[in-house]
Amino acid sequence: MSRGSGSGYDRHITIFSPEGRLYQVEYAFKAIKSVGVTSIGVRGKDSVCVVTQKKIPDKLVDPADVTHMFKITKVIGMCATGKSPDIRNVVQKARHKAAEFRHEFGYEIPVDFLSTRMADEFQVYTQHAYMRPMAAMCMFVGIDEEKGPCLFKNDPAGYCVGYKATSAGVKEQEAINFLEKKVKGENAGNAFDETETIQTAISCLQSVLGEDLKSKELEVGIVTTENKNFRLLSSDVIEEHLTAISERD
Amino acid sequence: MSRGSGSGYDRHITIFSPEGRLYQVEYAFKAIKSVGVTSIGVRGKDSVCVVTQKKIPDKLVDPADVTHMFKITKVIGMCATGKSPDIRNVVQKARHKAAEFRHEFGYEIPVDFLSTRMADEFQVYTQHAYMRPMAAMCMFVGIDEEKGPCLFKNDPAGYCVGYKATSAGVKEQEAINFLEKKVKGENAGNAFDETETIQTAISCLQSVLGEDLKSKELEVGIVTTENKNFRLLSSDVIEEHLTAISERD
Amino acid sequence: MSRGSGSGYDRHITIFSPEGRLYQVEYAFKAIKSVGVTSIGVRGKDSVCVVTQKKIPDKLVDPADVTHMFKITKVIGMCATGKSPDIRNVVQKARHKAAEFRHEFGYEIPVDFLSTRMADEFQVYTQHAYMRPMAAMCMFVGIDEEKGPCLFKNDPAGYCVGYKATSAGVKEQEAINFLEKKVKGENAGNAFDETETIQTAISCLQSVLGEDLKSKELEVGIVTTENKNFRLLSSDVIEEHLTAISERD
Amino acid sequence: MSRGSGSGYDRHITIFSPEGRLYQVEYAFKAIKSVGVTSIGVRGKDSVCVVTQKKIPDKLVDPADVTHMFKITKVIGMCATGKSPDIRNVVQKARHKAAEFRHEFGYEIPVDFLSTRMADEFQVYTQHAYMRPMAAMCMFVGIDEEKGPCLFKNDPAGYCVGYKATSAGVKEQEAINFLEKKVKGENAGNAFDETETIQTAISCLQSVLGEDLKSKELEVGIVTTENKNFRLLSSDVIEEHLTAISERD
Amino acid sequence: MSRGSGSGYDRHITIFSPEGRLYQVEYAFKAIKSVGVTSIGVRGKDSVCVVTQKKIPDKLVDPADVTHMFKITKVIGMCATGKSPDIRNVVQKARHKAAEFRHEFGYEIPVDFLSTRMADEFQVYTQHAYMRPMAAMCMFVGIDEEKGPCLFKNDPAGYCVGYKATSAGVKEQEAINFLEKKVKGENAGNAFDETETIQTAISCLQSVLGEDLKSKELEVGIVTTENKNFRLLSSDVIEEHLTAISERD
Amino acid sequence: MSRGSGSGYDRHITIFSPEGRLYQVEYAFKAIKSVGVTSIGVRGKDSVCVVTQKKIPDKLVDPADVTHMFKITKVIGMCATGKSPDIRNVVQKARHKAAEFRHEFGYEIPVDFLSTRMADEFQVYTQHAYMRPMAAMCMFVGIDEEKGPCLFKNDPAGYCVGYKATSAGVKEQEAINFLEKKVKGENAGNAFDETETIQTAISCLQSVLGEDLKSKELEVGIVTTENKNFRLLSSDVIEEHLTAISERD
Amino acid sequence: MSRGSGSGYDRHITIFSPEGRLYQVEYAFKAIKSVGVTSIGVRGKDSVCVVTQKKIPDKLVDPADVTHMFKITKVIGMCATGKSPDIRNVVQKARHKAAEFRHEFGYEIPVDFLSTRMADEFQVYTQHAYMRPMAAMCMFVGIDEEKGPCLFKNDPAGYCVGYKATSAGVKEQEAINFLEKKVKGENAGNAFDETETIQTAISCLQSVLGEDLKSKELEVGIVTTENKNFRLLSSDVIEEHLTAISERD
Repeated sequence: MSRGSGSGYDRHITIFSPEGRLYQVEYAFKAIKSVGVTSIGVRGKDSVCVVTQKKIPDKLVDPADVTHMFKITKVIGMCATGKSPDIRNVVQKARHKAAEFRHEFGYEIPVDFLSTRMADEFQVYTQHAYMRPMAAMCMFVGIDEEKGPCLFKNDPAGYCVGYKATSAGVKEQEAINFLEKKVKGENAGNAFDETETIQTAISCLQSVLGEDLKSKELEVGIVTTENKNFRLLSSDVIEEHLTAISERD
Repeated sequence: MSRGSGSGYDRHITIFSPEGRLYQVEYAFKAIKSVGVTSIGVRGKDSVCVVTQKKIPDKLVDPADVTHMFKITKVIGMCATGKSPDIRNVVQKARHKAAEFRHEFGYEIPVDFLSTRMADEFQVYTQHAYMRPMAAMCMFVGIDEEKGPCLFKNDPAGYCVGYKATSAGVKEQEAINFLEKKVKGENAGNAFDETETIQTAISCLQSVLGEDLKSKELEVGIVTTENKNFRLLSSDVIEEHLTAISERD
Repeated sequence: MSRGSGSGYDRHITIFSPEGRLYQVEYAFKAIKSVGVTSIGVRGKDSVCVVTQKKIPDKLVDPADVTHMFKITKVIGMCATGKSPDIRNVVQKARHKAAEFRHEFGYEIPVDFLSTRMADEFQVYTQHAYMRPMAAMCMFVGIDEEKGPCLFKNDPAGYCVGYKATSAGVKEQEAINFLEKKVKGENAGNAFDETETIQTAISCLQSVLGEDLKSKELEVGIVTTENKNFRLLSSDVIEEHLTAISERD
Repeated sequence: MSRGSGSGYDRHITIFSPEGRLYQVEYAFKAIKSVGVTSIGVRGKDSVCVVTQKKIPDKLVDPADVTHMFKITKVIGMCATGKSPDIRNVVQKARHKAAEFRHEFGYEIPVDFLSTRMADEFQVYTQHAYMRPMAAMCMFVGIDEEKGPCLFKNDPAGYCVGYKATSAGVKEQEAINFLEKKVKGENAGNAFDETETIQTAISCLQSVLGEDLKSKELEVGIVTTENKNFRLLSSDVIEEHLTAISERD
Repeated sequence: MSRGSGSGYDRHITIFSPEGRLYQVEYAFKAIKSVGVTSIGVRGKDSVCVVTQKKIPDKLVDPADVTHMFKITKVIGMCATGKSPDIRNVVQKARHKAAEFRHEFGYEIPVDFLSTRMADEFQVYTQHAYMRPMAAMCMFVGIDEEKGPCLFKNDPAGYCVGYKATSAGVKEQEAINFLEKKVKGENAGNAFDETETIQTAISCLQSVLGEDLKSKELEVGIVTTENKNFRLLSSDVIEEHLTAISERD
Repeated sequence: MSRGSGSGYDRHITIFSPEGRLYQVEYAFKAIKSVGVTSIGVRGKDSVCVVTQKKIPDKLVDPADVTHMFKITKVIGMCATGKSPDIRNVVQKARHKAAEFRHEFGYEIPVDFLSTRMADEFQVYTQHAYMRPMAAMCMFVGIDEEKGPCLFKNDPAGYCVGYKATSAGVKEQEAINFLEKKVKGENAGNAFDETETIQTAISCLQSVLGEDLKSKELEVGIVTTENKNFRLLSSDVIEEHLTAISERD
Repeated sequence: MSRGSGSGYDRHITIFSPEGRLYQVEYAFKAIKSVGVTSIGVRGKDSVCVVTQKKIPDKLVDPADVTHMFKITKVIGMCATGKSPDIRNVVQKARHKAAEFRHEFGYEIPVDFLSTRMADEFQVYTQHAYMRPMAAMCMFVGIDEEKGPCLFKNDPAGYCVGYKATSAGVKEQEAINFLEKKVKGENAGNAFDETETIQTAISCLQSVLGEDLKSKELEVGIVTTENKNFRLLSSDVIEEHLTAISERD
């Protein structure tokens, strides 16, 4: 880093450093982590679940207005981690793209297509001189007609790929370590049913944060093959899962 | 800060520092505080009240022309804190957005939607190279058809969220500490009636400024479920509240 | 200032310094003062008077062409202090805005509205990268249908507010001190009649300049409720006021 | 100057130095003086005369093509001092403005209006980032329907004002000193008749250059109330004036 | 490199260094290698085969979504090596060009034409100031009506040429050394049949990586004169080739 | 020069140095001289002649393609000195302007008008930020309906004036000295007939180059009142003039 | 060079150095030479021949795809030397210009006209700030209706001129020396017949490279008055010429 910092490569968005790095993209990743939130996504055999922390910046904030779960279409959800103004910008663009698609093709945008288009948008921000990369990491979830449950993650560099399970935010690496242990052996084939999917996601978050979470500190979004609409679990339902997890352990 | 100042990251609006910070946004926050005014917003069960200092820069200024309370639509008020030329710019944009909305959809813009759209505008200023962030912090208040009393706050970074009670300006942190004590226990559910709402806001401002305020040093804006129009309290009514507060203590 | 000068914040119009300051705006204020002229505005109960120095740069200049008093509409006057090319630019814009307003709404632009619109224009110059702030300070005077006599002052930062009395230019601070003493006690309510208004403005200028002014060294603009048209006092009338002031003292 | 030169304020057109100066404008004044030509304008009771040096850069130049006197309309003349390519640019713009005016309003553009419009143009060059100020100083002369003889001078900063007599170019200050002595006492009221007007202008130029001028080294432009058309005096007529001056002294 | 790094030539995309080099293009090559993947292309007498590593960034990634083999048209395949967001951008552009061609000319775009057009696009990125070069290296394969099997490779500089066999990525040079030995003597005339073509490509990759590859770590794309459609070999078929190779050696 | 070079004034096209100089324009003059060619123009009583060196860069160049004499219209010739790519650009623009003029006004563009318009174009290049000045010096010749023989010279600064005789290029100053001696006394009134005009131009070039020129090393362009068409003298005719000159001396 | 390199003149495309040089153009010439290829063009009495090296970058490249000979129209050929992505860009532009010409005027573009238009394009790249000069040197050959065999060469500076024989690339100077000896005395008048033309070009290349060339290492393009179509000699025909040359020497 000493080199980049001193020689100015990291102050220009559109240029490569002599090592072929794009520093501004790397700093955007740090900006995401600096928010201090971690999100988890887990894909089961007939459901996808995203869990994120609901951190109320101060006690006076109306908890109803603090959310990182967004319904992009009725059946596609997005769980975003990062700077909230940038996230809102992404939400608007995603909804716009989905609406355009429906208008043009007459059916709903597939979740993998939306996710890829959004990543294309992000890539453009890394290639032009007049904008900074987005400080947002987005998981898109939905039930695809053909592929079944889908979980995609986009990052500021414009990378976009499907996952069995993944994480974003400050404890991303720890969460991935946790998930890799769970999603192997008998579970490698995504054998989780809905309950296992949700509880794996929640217990992963609980584990990496090292604390007992309360239902109100969580947001849990879900889509299932039975009910393809993206929805948030109610506080009570989350509570039940938390209890089940603590009893299980 | 030493690093940012020395290496130039803080002179470019659209780039991240190596720590993922956007310095120009942070300096805009300082510009807001440098004005030396504090504002308070409190949401009750059937009302929302915003209070700010009416600071006359010199004795010759016509007090009637010094205001930080703006009627965006008949039923949406804005209490702005920061550089007054930037505030005026925001007022114009907000009124324009409200008018466009009414024209396009045939009904009044909801206060949360307006607040979010304005925050989107602010976010854009942090992402392009050719403008500086706005040196203004805005609280929007109104009675929503469905959600009832609403209090939103936008900042130069483009953050926007609803609050039970909040503050902006030079004594923001102290005011939030005061409000957090008031809005808890029995009052956490926003049980304040109109009088409690107003007096909480006023006494908060009085407390953080550490002085007895005079009615002419205050501006108090209010919306209630009974009278959804945004209006300022008259000097006499403010006086009555000040007397009630001093008697109560 | 040492910091700003050394670190380059003051060479970029659109960025905040780490303390939240916009240096170019501050330098524009200095450019205004560097012209060496002081202007005074005083609002009475039924009149508004603006007085400024008529400084002939050299003896060969045609005094008839040196003026800082401008008729924006028949009933709105402007007394400008600062760089004369910038002032002329402002005059054109103000007249244009007034004409547009009349065309669009069918009646004359109110003086407070014009003054605010011009301040909006000034604010824009502080926010974009491609123009410098205006080196001009403008007092707008007029008799408002509802508010009666009005005196507004705009500055390069885009601030704009109404005044009972105010000043602009190199001796601004001294003049404000003088005026604050006059406009208080029995006069605080703007009890000045037309003569008192004019003579307060003139004697204020005389006092801060510390010299006896001659009628030809002054420009005195006036609007009254009886004659709403903005007009300049003739040299003879100014002479009479000067005599009255010197006899009074 | 040491400060400006060292700290870079003078390399940016559109910014103020900490002292509120615009260095590029000041350097444009130097560019004008560097041409080494001096011009004089004198306004009499029924005429205006402009005199400038006809400096042939080398003996091979066709003297007929070297002129700094331009007919903008039949009745408005311009005597320009400065860089000749910039002057030509100004001439084109001035003629264009005059033509537009005539087309739009159906009568000839008044000389004061033209002069002010051109100064507006010059001001714009000092405010935008993408052009340098003009290296030209322009005197406009004409007989106004109402004001009679008019003499205006514009400079690179966009200043524009009427004069009884004035000068431009390398010996500007010396010429102004000379003129101030002439235009006072009995002559202060512009009592000069046509002959006195012309001879004052010519003898002023002769005096500041400290040498006997030959008729071919001069250009003398004149408008009179009897013959409003702008015209140049013939070499013979100039010779007669030179003889009269030398005999008079 | 010391020179370029120190003197700033490498921070500007569109300028030549004094030695005539374009540093940003060279850094883009490094960015490609930094991904750590190697690809191989081999052209046989009636087939073309491309092989690349399928590197799953972490175990949780859905392997189905990780691919560097893209079907541009039914009969043209692309094997891309480099930064995946840039690759996706290239895929979109390539498909768009192919569609435009078919629309305009009524038949499928030839593989050499597509490859050249994409290289033109890459060249443009090295010539304008506002974009960085693409961090992607692309092999295009197809069966041309006239030329038979075709293998083209494009790089960030905009170079594009046909190959008998080639490689891209971190072990590019080692692979080329390997291939040069195979494609000579009796094989110089591209005498490979389909099986030899595939196995040469796979064994080349295995050789430069110095490890036994598993079928799931590979992507193998193929077009043949019998079946011109671009298709990926199934995991089982790859396995058979791997076995054959290991038995053969 | 030390100052300009060190302080960066000479690297910005559109700014004045503190001394009021435009360095880029001065460097363009040097670029013209660096070509090593000298041109001469002489105006006689009924003809104008331009002479320039025909320097073949190497022996392999086709001499027929090396020319600095251009026919702009049938009756206007241009002799250009400087960088040949820039010259070609000027030729195109000049022909375009001439064609536009003819189209718009129905008659041929006068030579002085064309020459001035081209100089206007050159001035623009010195005033905007995005282009460099032209490295070309152009003499325009033609027979004007009213003024008779005309010889104009434009330079990179945008200067443009008529000449009795002039020169451009590396030996410009020496040639002007030579011409000044010839064009005086009995010849000052441009009494040269066609032969004298041509031979003065040729012998001037021969004199400043200090060598005997061969006909193939010269280009001689001519217009005469008898034959207004711009044409080049044939090698034989030039030879005759060279012989006459050498015999005369 | 030390000066340019140190003071920054060479990093800006559109500015002159104090010596009047355009460094970026000079660096583009180096970029061309860095490719390591040399080309030769020779014009005979009824033919023009261009010869260049066919350098296969590595043994795997398909030799059929490596060419620096391009058919711009059926009868105009181009032999380009330099960076191959830039060359491809030039080819496209040249073909486009040729097509436009044919469309507009109804007959084939003459070779000299095409060559000049392409040079105009190159000149523009040296005058604007947003593009670098082209790293390509182009020889255009064709049989002109009137002028017969034509050989033109363009360079990155925008120079364009016709040649009897010329060279481009790394051994350009040595080749020119060789050619100057051949094209003189009896051959100065381009007395070469087709065979002599071809063999002069080939033996020149052989001579400057100091090695015996093989037919597959050469590309030879030819147009003749009998067959105006631009075509490449087959490997066998080249072989015959090589044999003839070696036997002759």
